[in-house]
Amino acid sequence: MATTEPVAHHSMSHQEQARRHLWMHFSRMGAYDADHEIPVIARGEGCHVWDENGRRYFDGLSALFCVNIGHGRTDIAQAGADQAKELGFFTNWSYAHPPAIELATRIAGLAPGDLNRVFFTSGGSEAVESAIKVVRHFHKLTGHPNKTKIIAREVAYHGTSLGALTATGITALRQPYEPFTPGGCHVPNTNLYRLKPGYGAETLAESVRERIEFEGPETVAAVIMEPVQNAGGCFTPPDGYWQRVREICDEYDVLLISDEVICSWGRLGEWFGAQRYGYQPDIITTAKGITSAYAAMGAMIVSDRVAEPFLEGHASFMHGFTFAGHPMSCAIALANIDAMESEGVIENVRENETAFADMLNGLRDIPIVGDVRGAGYFHAIELVKDRDTKESFDDDESEWLLRGYLSGELYRRGLICRADDRGDPVIQLSPPLIAGPAEFEEIESILRPTLQEASDQVQRRGRG
Amino acid sequence: MATTEPVAHHSMSHQEQARRHLWMHFSRMGAYDADHEIPVIARGEGCHVWDENGRRYFDGLSALFCVNIGHGRTDIAQAGADQAKELGFFTNWSYAHPPAIELATRIAGLAPGDLNRVFFTSGGSEAVESAIKVVRHFHKLTGHPNKTKIIAREVAYHGTSLGALTATGITALRQPYEPFTPGGCHVPNTNLYRLKPGYGAETLAESVRERIEFEGPETVAAVIMEPVQNAGGCFTPPDGYWQRVREICDEYDVLLISDEVICSWGRLGEWFGAQRYGYQPDIITTAKGITSAYAAMGAMIVSDRVAEPFLEGHASFMHGFTFAGHPMSCAIALANIDAMESEGVIENVRENETAFADMLNGLRDIPIVGDVRGAGYFHAIELVKDRDTKESFDDDESEWLLRGYLSGELYRRGLICRADDRGDPVIQLSPPLIAGPAEFEEIESILRPTLQEASDQVQRRGRG
Repeated sequence: MATTEPVAHHSMSHQEQARRHLWMHFSRMGAYDADHEIPVIARGEGCHVWDENGRRYFDGLSALFCVNIGHGRTDIAQAGADQAKELGFFTNWSYAHPPAIELATRIAGLAPGDLNRVFFTSGGSEAVESAIKVVRHFHKLTGHPNKTKIIAREVAYHGTSLGALTATGITALRQPYEPFTPGGCHVPNTNLYRLKPGYGAETLAESVRERIEFEGPETVAAVIMEPVQNAGGCFTPPDGYWQRVREICDEYDVLLISDEVICSWGRLGEWFGAQRYGYQPDIITTAKGITSAYAAMGAMIVSDRVAEPFLEGHASFMHGFTFAGHPMSCAIALANIDAMESEGVIENVRENETAFADMLNGLRDIPIVGDVRGAGYFHAIELVKDRDTKESFDDDESEWLLRGYLSGELYRRGLICRADDRGDPVIQLSPPLIAGPAEFEEIESILRPTLQEASDQVQRRGRG
Repeated sequence: MATTEPVAHHSMSHQEQARRHLWMHFSRMGAYDADHEIPVIARGEGCHVWDENGRRYFDGLSALFCVNIGHGRTDIAQAGADQAKELGFFTNWSYAHPPAIELATRIAGLAPGDLNRVFFTSGGSEAVESAIKVVRHFHKLTGHPNKTKIIAREVAYHGTSLGALTATGITALRQPYEPFTPGGCHVPNTNLYRLKPGYGAETLAESVRERIEFEGPETVAAVIMEPVQNAGGCFTPPDGYWQRVREICDEYDVLLISDEVICSWGRLGEWFGAQRYGYQPDIITTAKGITSAYAAMGAMIVSDRVAEPFLEGHASFMHGFTFAGHPMSCAIALANIDAMESEGVIENVRENETAFADMLNGLRDIPIVGDVRGAGYFHAIELVKDRDTKESFDDDESEWLLRGYLSGELYRRGLICRADDRGDPVIQLSPPLIAGPAEFEEIESILRPTLQEASDQVQRRGRG
């Protein structure tokens, strides 16, 4: 008999397993080493999460703009498991099931105007993909086969799949993946802190008209924009902007897609961002807060006018995703919407958004705080080297300030938020919609001293 | 006081609500009228589902090749709700969480060879998008920036988002959405029933080499193929095909993506389809059966070699999806894999796949049954007008046979399967992996008389 070797028990830690087997999204995987552990989040409750070592963090980003109703809602999660007692899964491909029907009806009732038809997806990128495809197909069915281009805004994020990427206006996210879907054209965003030369707040919308004219109206299918643009740091629209964009779209038979993956489900104090700014899109794309992130789900909500040519004869939108409209996800979304209604979550945002903005505006005494902007529970602080000249940080400085200092330091002190330089450097805050004045104080108690120290270091480095 | 109008109580039926508000996938929405109701599936248990009227159906397609372990597994669904007692949601963007780490480690242990790194998604299209992006980025990082093209096979389905669509080789699914991501090149598939002129079973793989040579090796990033091709009807590879494709990829520094959205998680009697045919891909894309469809989830599983350049310095795969690696979905996937192991689900497929194929082959006495093919629990029956000449149905005949007769008639008699003519007309069967001889009898009891009647009608029409 051969001598048997003792069995090696590989009990790798989560940290070791994560480094070996998990490919994290949008992450520099080479940055994790003995001194830089991967943050492993293990528990959540309300506005807080805890890591594996039991350390508590305020979740100032609602995970990723999505846990709108807060963490720890076992009742909402349980609605999914309960649905599985009847039907765990069936598709939306030539079949329907009660949870998808009920959720579609509920969404149509909440969405503005004649946005009455719901095409489900499993997330935001899929919703944007669906919107780009449906506007192209719509124009082909209505006699304008060359209307294929999509006008979006600079620095905007609309997803990373290779169709959504044509709308995304962030060079670093696009460049390594060329060539992808053609047709994305970009116009200035509504960065009112750094207005594009040649534009005033009141003329920004004209850039859309100019771009349609330049491309040729017969080549332009749609305009896609967020109610408040996320990337770049919560750019709000100037008064009348959306109304003018709507007029321009109508003038040139261009469809208007309101990308509300972030800005719906209470984030701006309304069910949909379009309602806050009083415009009527042809399509809304949504995801994230639709389930408060208790299930992967998204949707494209389409107007009667856009749906109409697809309801005739043999016409069919040749498009689908297996898991879209998942019965358990639908049940979770319905439970989430019920809870938001019965608990007055949207009303909470309306009541407290001014206090939230006031707290952030109160940080303007810190020299690196250049701008504070946003709406609802969706705000950004732009960091600058010099507040008077609005001089920004260069790439190396931004690398040090955001990745070398602020991200790590805020996390160590117990605040999860976003330090981002896809545009100019910003800190973004987007807390769960159940937060109120006490939570704003908690955010401030970490944010103020950390920004102050960063500011001091910037000044020392400037002198050094 | 004004007279108050009575409140109108709109209690629309699910049927009315679905027609008004739900946009179904890949569906001719104009086809539903008073005589053609939308099928509303309301309950599932094991291999069966029930519609709203209580009618029972054998689910011969596992919903859409995905409910591998069968319907009604409240235990697996409950694993998601239980996970939410700790953590309902957090992202994989610069953070990790225990369920994603544990599932990534588990998958790496099951996947063949050095496929050790897992990038999660919310479904199959997102997995294919991720694969197309990662191969392009890999070649750029390793000094071959022009290697961007993707070679796929004719009639293959790889998803409908605008990147995945470049791989999908079905004209009707591509045409209305042009221009989409460039670079998709298509070679003959392994339809052994209708071999492409100029090719023998043993030379089919050479078409890949020829296409790489034609495009120019410095422009080709990857080959993407399913172990058994779904669309067209379960095309199995001839002996040695995959080995030769692997050799060709190695020769030209082209990465090999095994798209196993359908063919993994037991569908072919192995965890992964590549294991059945004994080849080593650089990337596996998967989804569907990973959770047996109890949650929306997918993954891209990447070899150490492909991951390596992304682990160095500031390199980062600039890509992500909010809901990817959802903690509840991961917990459901882990529960599903546990159950598959402890209940011997894959062994069940191995034991019974011959009986399944035998039952289907037994239908060859029906004149319109031209071919029966497939592997594991994944088979197709190709329907022909003339078995001797293999003459197929033209478009109008196929429209009548599949949509006008078989789809509806099989459903009315209680069998859900796929009647498809993206290639030549086929009936596809892909039952839950818990099925056995008794279930095959049930399938046959509906399929045989229906196909026989269809065959009789075809002959009458031929004479008429």
